[in-house]
Amino acid sequence: MNKMVQQIEIICVGNELLTGKTLNTNAQWIAKRATSMGIVVKRIIVVSDDTDEIANAIKEALQRKPRFLITTGGLGPTFDDKTLEGIAKALNRRLEVNEKALKMVRQKYDAYAKAGGIERVELTPPRIKMAKLPEGAEPLPNPVGTAPGVRIDVEKTFLIALPGVPSEMEAIFEESVVSLLKREAGKAVFFETSIYADNIMESSLAPLIDKTMHDNPYVYIKSHPKGEEKKPHIEIHFSTTAESSKIAKDRIGKAIIQLSELVQRSGGKIKTLS
Amino acid sequence: MNKMVQQIEIICVGNELLTGKTLNTNAQWIAKRATSMGIVVKRIIVVSDDTDEIANAIKEALQRKPRFLITTGGLGPTFDDKTLEGIAKALNRRLEVNEKALKMVRQKYDAYAKAGGIERVELTPPRIKMAKLPEGAEPLPNPVGTAPGVRIDVEKTFLIALPGVPSEMEAIFEESVVSLLKREAGKAVFFETSIYADNIMESSLAPLIDKTMHDNPYVYIKSHPKGEEKKPHIEIHFSTTAESSKIAKDRIGKAIIQLSELVQRSGGKIKTLS
Repeated sequence: MNKMVQQIEIICVGNELLTGKTLNTNAQWIAKRATSMGIVVKRIIVVSDDTDEIANAIKEALQRKPRFLITTGGLGPTFDDKTLEGIAKALNRRLEVNEKALKMVRQKYDAYAKAGGIERVELTPPRIKMAKLPEGAEPLPNPVGTAPGVRIDVEKTFLIALPGVPSEMEAIFEESVVSLLKREAGKAVFFETSIYADNIMESSLAPLIDKTMHDNPYVYIKSHPKGEEKKPHIEIHFSTTAESSKIAKDRIGKAIIQLSELVQRSGGKIKTLS
Repeated sequence: MNKMVQQIEIICVGNELLTGKTLNTNAQWIAKRATSMGIVVKRIIVVSDDTDEIANAIKEALQRKPRFLITTGGLGPTFDDKTLEGIAKALNRRLEVNEKALKMVRQKYDAYAKAGGIERVELTPPRIKMAKLPEGAEPLPNPVGTAPGVRIDVEKTFLIALPGVPSEMEAIFEESVVSLLKREAGKAVFFETSIYADNIMESSLAPLIDKTMHDNPYVYIKSHPKGEEKKPHIEIHFSTTAESSKIAKDRIGKAIIQLSELVQRSGGKIKTLS
């Protein structure tokens, strides 16, 4: 891994994630997208719909100075949508109606009114709430739902708040976040692939992986047992972040050849498909 | 929520969770099981296979003094299985071969040798590694795989390290962790249920939920939009933690009746199935 690689942290807000009601697919989705762009995901944190919990998680993450800090959830109209309150508290900024965000929300409800054949949907406090952003924030258009995303540049960190509804989160990410990630990631490329080993125990594979990683310092190799130690079927996952796709693939190819030979010499069998 | 409720934090270790390669089903599984026993999950943290990252996450979590701190992943025989190293560093304890753990590992490999028709599987350093625990730790038998789980009592926190392979994690949890959680949870019971509202926007529902929660202070109500704001279909999720199942159900029943009436008076439709 080289020093130029940018880091990202993800904070997911929602009691439903902490009770196990909802599987955290948002974190995986963002992690995968960011990783594919050569950005390293350093930490994922899940906290409840509580202003102090959110504020603490934000403060702690900012202290670690990631280049990006993305939150999901808690941007909607209900009382327990507290992410912006938490961010405001963490940054010691006031929440105020952001005129640009209010216009976005107004336009959404005008469109809903038109679609529903009614004259006008009133901007009640819960609706205005979605346009109350921390001072200095920039709203990000929501192509799918109502609540805008939010971007705040805090010293060297881009802090971006996205909704929890996956389709809305993904749409804002693609429309307003990807270009920023790509710009910062520069030419970094992440490449990964897996091979599979049978007939060798993970504990026997361990020193062979050690040797291969030692000889291929930019390649990360991790074994994932899919069978049991006594009847081993092991996924061996290779990954690297490099300056170009060619460099990445060359590096990984070299490591795969070396490890495959070591495994076969120990009586293991290598497959390229699971 | 009452003050007697015990808290748990979950730390998941693994680069594959941070690259998005693997969906974090372990966190959801533990969260669901702990919640069902009346224990509140306060935070879920995902960190990489790095001793310092693990140690920092452990130290930070311990400072928040949860009753339980459960880790998943990083207990195996390979170089990047660093959870016990991270825990040892966080607690400022040495790693040492634990005789009880070594016996467990020895028995596993004896059984594998027998099953494989070979005389004996040698205890190489990667295999002995799985029995190197922080001083004062207690190994927990692994009914499915090789690496034992680990329990360390740190002041008022039960720190429990479980493997990352789901079947192994779940088996150790059921065999050695559930009874401890139940004992500490006491009589607390978590109960949850959902109803569904059509024909009412989430932003219109918000003040009705506010009123119902105000009148039912122990019931937590959260709306989850499943359609769009312009064509709303909303899950309304009710939950409570109480001293008995009867109290929990009575509380939630009362809140459902009140909110359903408020929604219907606003022109919304209530369904009990999605």
